[in-house]
Amino acid sequence: MPGEFDFINWLRARHQPSEFVPIPLGDDLAVLKWPAEDLLLVGVDQVLDGVHFDSTIHSPRSIGRKVMNRNLSDCAAMACLPAAAVTTAALPRGVGLEYAKELYLGLRDAADPFDCVIVGGDTGSWEGKLVLTVTILGRSAGIAPIRRTGARADDNIYVTGPLGGSILGRHMSFEPRVALARQLSATGRVTAMIDISDGLGRDLGHVCRESGVGAMIEADKIPIHEDAVTLSRDGRSPLDHALGDGEDHELLLTGSLEGLNLPVTRIGRVTAGSEIMLHQDGQAISLAERGWEHRL
Amino acid sequence: MPGEFDFINWLRARHQPSEFVPIPLGDDLAVLKWPAEDLLLVGVDQVLDGVHFDSTIHSPRSIGRKVMNRNLSDCAAMACLPAAAVTTAALPRGVGLEYAKELYLGLRDAADPFDCVIVGGDTGSWEGKLVLTVTILGRSAGIAPIRRTGARADDNIYVTGPLGGSILGRHMSFEPRVALARQLSATGRVTAMIDISDGLGRDLGHVCRESGVGAMIEADKIPIHEDAVTLSRDGRSPLDHALGDGEDHELLLTGSLEGLNLPVTRIGRVTAGSEIMLHQDGQAISLAERGWEHRL
Repeated sequence: MPGEFDFINWLRARHQPSEFVPIPLGDDLAVLKWPAEDLLLVGVDQVLDGVHFDSTIHSPRSIGRKVMNRNLSDCAAMACLPAAAVTTAALPRGVGLEYAKELYLGLRDAADPFDCVIVGGDTGSWEGKLVLTVTILGRSAGIAPIRRTGARADDNIYVTGPLGGSILGRHMSFEPRVALARQLSATGRVTAMIDISDGLGRDLGHVCRESGVGAMIEADKIPIHEDAVTLSRDGRSPLDHALGDGEDHELLLTGSLEGLNLPVTRIGRVTAGSEIMLHQDGQAISLAERGWEHRL
Repeated sequence: MPGEFDFINWLRARHQPSEFVPIPLGDDLAVLKWPAEDLLLVGVDQVLDGVHFDSTIHSPRSIGRKVMNRNLSDCAAMACLPAAAVTTAALPRGVGLEYAKELYLGLRDAADPFDCVIVGGDTGSWEGKLVLTVTILGRSAGIAPIRRTGARADDNIYVTGPLGGSILGRHMSFEPRVALARQLSATGRVTAMIDISDGLGRDLGHVCRESGVGAMIEADKIPIHEDAVTLSRDGRSPLDHALGDGEDHELLLTGSLEGLNLPVTRIGRVTAGSEIMLHQDGQAISLAERGWEHRL
């Protein structure tokens, strides 16, 4: 079976030129010319077999797509444009070259529409299960990064799509909201933003904590995905799923977008203080944070 | 046991200010202001339990140090200065918070002397074994990146230290040659460079292939580490170990440094053609590439 260097040659033949990469690949590090006017945004996300995907069910192509899309969604959360990425793969020994190529093609499926170029990586094989990581480099490109810290009392709270039940399949196939994030942020009226990866309740908690504010959300305004309804056969209500499930990768944002024709749904309002309250059936109840916290 | 967010708070409390990081951490991505005059060099390296270290023998602190040092050594190979890093950890479920902290402190042990600041990461736990990755961002800082492509016939070939037998312990404790790489490259007389990670024979092969040249190396000039002598009890000669073992992380470079008082050892000469020859006992024999190629 061909080895690592055949794979590297296959990868290099697929490298696309980019305005940011003045020097061809093939060295210990890739060389980029970063636009002087752009801030550089950087982050990394990994996916682990049995946690973020199941290699006995999901194709390598869909696994590659997911890890790249998670990182692209981080770019959306900050309203930056994805520019370049590097990647690692820890491959179970014996999976073979075709499997590795499919992982890479999945990464490319997700990255190519954004002109995000994969400039480097590290591939190894081991006795363990599949681990993929992507490090993403984004550029501000004329829009100041939107942080979690800017929410202020009386801002409205919005989401960009229906929530809950992503485990039924959308967690593998979501589309990162990069273009929408840029459109929203270009209005100058978005004060804080995050992508919903841990679950609405928990991610709203992140924004409130970083901004030093509270929130009141309206139960009947939260858009609930039909997957949350399907999943509610487990005994938890569709609303519970919309509040607590993770990996929706819709955007959660604060600001004042009224009067603008933008595809967002207002779900509540930022408040002074620090509590997150849920208004439901005429009552306001404190919303304990929900969603996932991976235990170490 | 404390969870992910306690760990993140612990990490954030340890974040060091940097001239490149104008905005505090805590968002989906870190925000960096890249110096306009600097090229941005980027790469990623992973370490896998059972391949690059053995978690039953090596401390988490030494494992963290190793993965950071591998990346710093890539910076040395390109003659750039490490500036920032992001990291992932896939933690075996149940290892606990102290273990995760030790991994991080190991990363910091290696990065801090170079003012390389860790600006982000992703930590998860799973049923598998430990995987750590580091993505490094380096800056050219006044020295053009040294590539693998610049070797020319009649250049001399040098290494920066004795080779072989790193498996006896040095593979966990090597020091990246960043300062020496800068000193060598500042002369303007280095034409190509790489760090020896795959083994002298194989890494010289990378340089020759990328540069379109061959090489003649002198067996009696290759500096052999005492670990290679110790290891030769396995029946392979000390020279074999020096040529074939990996993870020395000394620098291999080409150019013309004669007359300069620099701590390098000349081991041979670049030739026209494409073959790598070893001159030993009055004979020149073709050196089949040695070292490691991880099978997929």
